[in-house]
Formats: sequence, structure tokens, C-alpha cells
Amino acid sequence: MKIETKIAKFTKPLYLESGRILEPWQIIYETYGELNEDKSNVILITHALSGSHHAAGKYENDTKPGWWDALIGEGKAIDTNKYFVIATNVIGSCFGSTGPMSHIYPGSEERYRLKFPVVTIKDMIKAQKILLDSLGIKHIKAVIGGSMGGMQALRFGVDYPGFSEYVIPIATTYQTKPYVIAINKSMTEAIRADKEFNNGNYKPGALLKGLSAARMIGYLNYTSPATFEKKFGREYVKTDGMFELFGRFQVESYLEYNGANFPKWFDALSYIYLLKAISLFDISRGFNSLEDAFSAIKDKLYLISFSGDTLFFPQEMREIKKYMDKVDGKCQYYEIDSNYGHDSFLVETQKFDFLINDILKGKLDARF
Amino acid sequence: MKIETKIAKFTKPLYLESGRILEPWQIIYETYGELNEDKSNVILITHALSGSHHAAGKYENDTKPGWWDALIGEGKAIDTNKYFVIATNVIGSCFGSTGPMSHIYPGSEERYRLKFPVVTIKDMIKAQKILLDSLGIKHIKAVIGGSMGGMQALRFGVDYPGFSEYVIPIATTYQTKPYVIAINKSMTEAIRADKEFNNGNYKPGALLKGLSAARMIGYLNYTSPATFEKKFGREYVKTDGMFELFGRFQVESYLEYNGANFPKWFDALSYIYLLKAISLFDISRGFNSLEDAFSAIKDKLYLISFSGDTLFFPQEMREIKKYMDKVDGKCQYYEIDSNYGHDSFLVETQKFDFLINDILKGKLDARF
Repeated sequence: MKIETKIAKFTKPLYLESGRILEPWQIIYETYGELNEDKSNVILITHALSGSHHAAGKYENDTKPGWWDALIGEGKAIDTNKYFVIATNVIGSCFGSTGPMSHIYPGSEERYRLKFPVVTIKDMIKAQKILLDSLGIKHIKAVIGGSMGGMQALRFGVDYPGFSEYVIPIATTYQTKPYVIAINKSMTEAIRADKEFNNGNYKPGALLKGLSAARMIGYLNYTSPATFEKKFGREYVKTDGMFELFGRFQVESYLEYNGANFPKWFDALSYIYLLKAISLFDISRGFNSLEDAFSAIKDKLYLISFSGDTLFFPQEMREIKKYMDKVDGKCQYYEIDSNYGHDSFLVETQKFDFLINDILKGKLDARF
Repeated sequence: MKIETKIAKFTKPLYLESGRILEPWQIIYETYGELNEDKSNVILITHALSGSHHAAGKYENDTKPGWWDALIGEGKAIDTNKYFVIATNVIGSCFGSTGPMSHIYPGSEERYRLKFPVVTIKDMIKAQKILLDSLGIKHIKAVIGGSMGGMQALRFGVDYPGFSEYVIPIATTYQTKPYVIAINKSMTEAIRADKEFNNGNYKPGALLKGLSAARMIGYLNYTSPATFEKKFGREYVKTDGMFELFGRFQVESYLEYNGANFPKWFDALSYIYLLKAISLFDISRGFNSLEDAFSAIKDKLYLISFSGDTLFFPQEMREIKKYMDKVDGKCQYYEIDSNYGHDSFLVETQKFDFLINDILKGKLDARF
């Protein structure tokens, strides 16, 4: 599989939903497979909160492949022998696209930090659409993403009707519910409570403990109680004392490890900005009603949710289906049985890869 | 209703499960109603993580009554015209019982802080049993508690068989599951990540932001998504900008308020010690098996769980019932339909007060 990593730089301003601009701005992206002659075989992959443009394949010396490697590749559900797959890192993130810590506030020599504008899901896909335009791509086969990536896919369907043949949002919602806003808030506040965060003025590369704590909160909300049971049970770390205050169960040791690693590869300000984007997500913003928003979708909308998702409950995606039915949109809803919680979209790919394969082959369109 | 608040001081050591001791130690408790002549009308109330001995009634100048005021009082389910109710503050807590921040490490002039021994649920009820002994009480009518209070009730049944006529654990478990241990860990680490916590050497009275963040994490795990929806929806604070990074949804504003208040009335070290006690809870510790532990219970065990509890799932209490059936114990299980999540035991009392009333009157014993 041919993998290419590129950075697209734009000098024209990116006009954001907030009324502010990013100028200049850039987006890092990765492609898999080959663009065909008439540029008609493009699939856009949109990533989740801590995801990146590295969706598939392995870099040299890498031990782990991209986050959706199980789905994207030669002969896989998203077949790179057939499709030219583009995965971009969202603006605001920290893997090379313009973000609060990685880039300079124009006209200064300082990083953006808290001067970075709030970006929304709408802004993210606007940036991706500009990238597609710059590549001369006039139409895509599909936009596919899970969680925050699913929000982007849905927004793409609403904002650029007719541009994609298929829109496939997975494990997501149409409007972030207050429960999830509360989870996001507790993560943001865990970061802000750490004095070393210093109101955004932390040292570049600082391993912020507040960000580690936020990661732990995230982990427990994206994983299911059943997964914890299966993976850790009540095993205690053998070298720790049961009655030491900071003695650890295996699950605690894992959270510490996972939490301690996170600040090594993810930036605290990007985390806060992306949480904000998720909390602000409401597909009806800019429309008079949810019906109006959904009636804008002209592409074929395929929804995939997971029974055990306790972050974006299946019920929320069933509501999308109801709205689409109401406005006579083309929509099909699939619910996958899974015990893995919200992260099912990452760890249970074998339960829905065939579905994506069938969708892309048009096998399910007969049902419309 | 007669309310009395008292402190019982003990000079003999309290031998803890860890092998360590508390010496001297004290326990603060509150009583409602009158002890009858043969001291046979006692009901022991055990509290949850952030609870206290102030379970019912109002102090002078108080705006809010005790945390289970809806259940405890004259003519209420736990009728103080009939019963002498004792509610103690657990050891390790911060309302007057011996705890890490409020008491001095013996032989020094310093507070215990991290020198405080780890206390367990078993230790908490041992201390309460010693209090009962000191009051000349040889038998009680019932021990009743929710959440961590339910753990204490269950442990009381196992450790002091025959001492109580009824054991009524509510919204609790027999063994803290790794998912809840993970929640506890993320709260502990949010506190530790705050530099002002200073590894336990914070200034007395410091309003630790890490503790505020921990409270937010707690709040979102004890409340249900449905409650958030009903209470807050996606309302935005009118004076905040939608595209300000720290602009707030109403739910965020509430979490900030609730979080900021918490360090004013709860201590960070007590919080960490009590979380540890909850994580360590396993009714089978000290026994060869769960069956062995449950077969120790000689009192009538009434279990009450809530359908929407996503912290201690009803399934966990159904397992207690199964074990009790297996060992031919006296046990009945009741599941209350509720959308309020774990906190149902505090906010939906009208759905189970009649049940407690019936249990205490012996009306349900015929089913054994």
C-alpha cells in the first residue's frame, strides 16, 4: 500500500464559524492508494479526539499501525487497491495541522496558546473541503469517521450536499448531550487545576499531570465496565502493598501508565480546544431546526452505532434516522452488538468492516 | 425530633485491617429520637463517600436538612417516634471523626496527612460497633446505608452476625469492580496532579482546584445522562460567548459552582482515603470465598438497587441475592425503577421509603 504524508499550506484566510480567521494555516494529511485519472475514487477519513492523519499502515520503525489499519488497506473494507483514501489531521490538533501550541500567532513570535480561535466541527470539515478543492477533487465516494470523526462526516453531509456519494458517521451524535459536555468539562478542569498548566503558558513539552488525569477520565468513559472486568478484574500489583494509600490495582497501574504517556504525544491546549469543538457540536446550528439541517443532506447516509456505547448512545443515532425519515432523506441505521463501550468503533472493527465494504459496493442501496 | 450531636473519644487502640492502629481515636455521631429502656430500638445509619453524621433534621440557621431527612424523622419511614437512630461519621472522613487532616499524628505536633493509615469498610464498621458497645447497645433493629454506606451495612451483617435484625444495603456492591476503581483513581489523580496538593502537604483550608475537578468527575458518575438532559439540556450561559474557549454551557457552570464549593466543606486527603476504602472493598476478604462470606450473614438481608444505577449496577446486587440463595441465607432483593443514576438512593427516596417502612415493620418477613 502506498502511503504518503503531506502538508498543505494555505495563505488565504480560513474563515471560522466564530467570525475569526486562521491565516495562514495548514493541514497535514496522509493518503493511501492511488488517485484515479478522473479523481473519482476518493474516500475521506475523519478522526476522533486523540486521533491523527495516521489512520493506516506502518511507518518505518513503527511498532503500531494507524488507528483504523484494520479497515483501511489492500483488500480490506476500505480497499486501497480501489480507493484513494485521504486522512487529515483536524485543525486545532497537534500532529502538524495549525494548532494552539504548534503554531505562531501571526505577527508575533509567540505561539497561539489561548489566542488560538475556538474551532468547530464545521470549521474542521471546511478546512478539509478546501484541501480537497486544492487537489482538484470535485466529488468523493465517501466520508467516514467515528466519534468526533462521525460528527465531521455528518457535518460534511449537511454542509456540502451532493459532494459525497456516501456519508458514514459511526458511534456519534447529532448534538452533544449535556452528559458528554460534563465529561469534557471535567477533563478540561483537571488540566486547568494543574498549576503547571499555568493558564496555558506551560513549557513546550511539559509532561502535565493534569493532562494525564484528563486522559484517565477519557479512558474510563470511552471503555465499558465489561472491558475493565475482562481486562483487569481486581488484580492487585504484586509489588504494591494492599494497605498502602497509593498501592495500585492493575487497572490503576494501567491508567497511570496510559495517563503518564499521553502528554508525551498529545498537547494539553489541543485537547481543550478539541473538547470544546465536541461540546459545541450541534448539527442544527445555522439552521432553524434539526429537520432543516437533516433535510440538507442529499447523500446516502449510513449510520453505525454500538449497543454498548455509553458516550454517544445508540438512541441518539436512532433519532437521526427518525429525522431523516421525516424529511424523506436516504438513511439506513445499523446497530452493532458490542460490549466494548464507545471505543468499539476502534476495537471491534471485525464486527462492521463487512458492512462498510457492502455500503461502498452499493450492495445496500437497493433498500432505499 | 430530638437531635443530639456527640463525639465519642476512645483511648484504647482501634486495630485496623492493615495491622496498623489508631490511638487515640474518636467518632462523631448524631442521634435522632430516644433510646428506649432496654436499648432495643436502635437503627444505625451508615453514610456514603461525601456524607456525614448529619443524616436528618436541621441545625439552627441551616438552610438544608441532613442528607436522608426524607427518610428519617417523626412519622417517616425510619420513624424517630419509634426508633433511636444513630448516624456516625466514618473514621477517615473530615467532619469530626479521626481523619488524616483533622487530627494529629500521635507523638508529634503535626497532622497525620499521608501518615494516616489506610482504613477499610471493615474498619469503619468496627469503629461504629465499638461505639455501640460503649453505649451499652447489645442488639440493633437495623443497619441501613447507601453506596459506601451500603458496603458498611453489608460488612456489618458479615462481621457481626446476629447483632442486627435487618441489614439493608442500598445502591451498592459486594466487591468494587475495576470500572469503579478506575473512576476513583481518576479522581485521586486529579487531586494529586494539582501542585497545590503538594503531595498531601497543602495548607489547611486551601481550596484545591484538583479536588474541585475530582468532584466534577464524581458528579458525572453519580448522576445519570437523563438527569443532565432534564436539568441542563444544552442551555448556554447567557453572558458567556459561544466561541470563547472557556465560555460555558449551563451544565459546565453548575459543575464549576459545585466543584468550587466542594473544597470548602470536604478535605482532599479524606477524599483520597475514602476512595481507597471503596476501591479496596471486597466482602470476601478474610474468607475463603464469596459463599463463605455470605454464609456468615445471620440477619435478614434486604437489598435495594436502582435500575438506572451505572456505578453499582443492579446486576451486582442480584449476584448477592444469588449467593445468599446458594447458602440458604435470608435475603430479598428489590429493584427500583429510576432514571437518576447512582444518586437515586439520595434523590428518589419517595420510591423506596414505603419499602423500608414495610421491612422495619416486619411486613415482608413472611416471604422467608
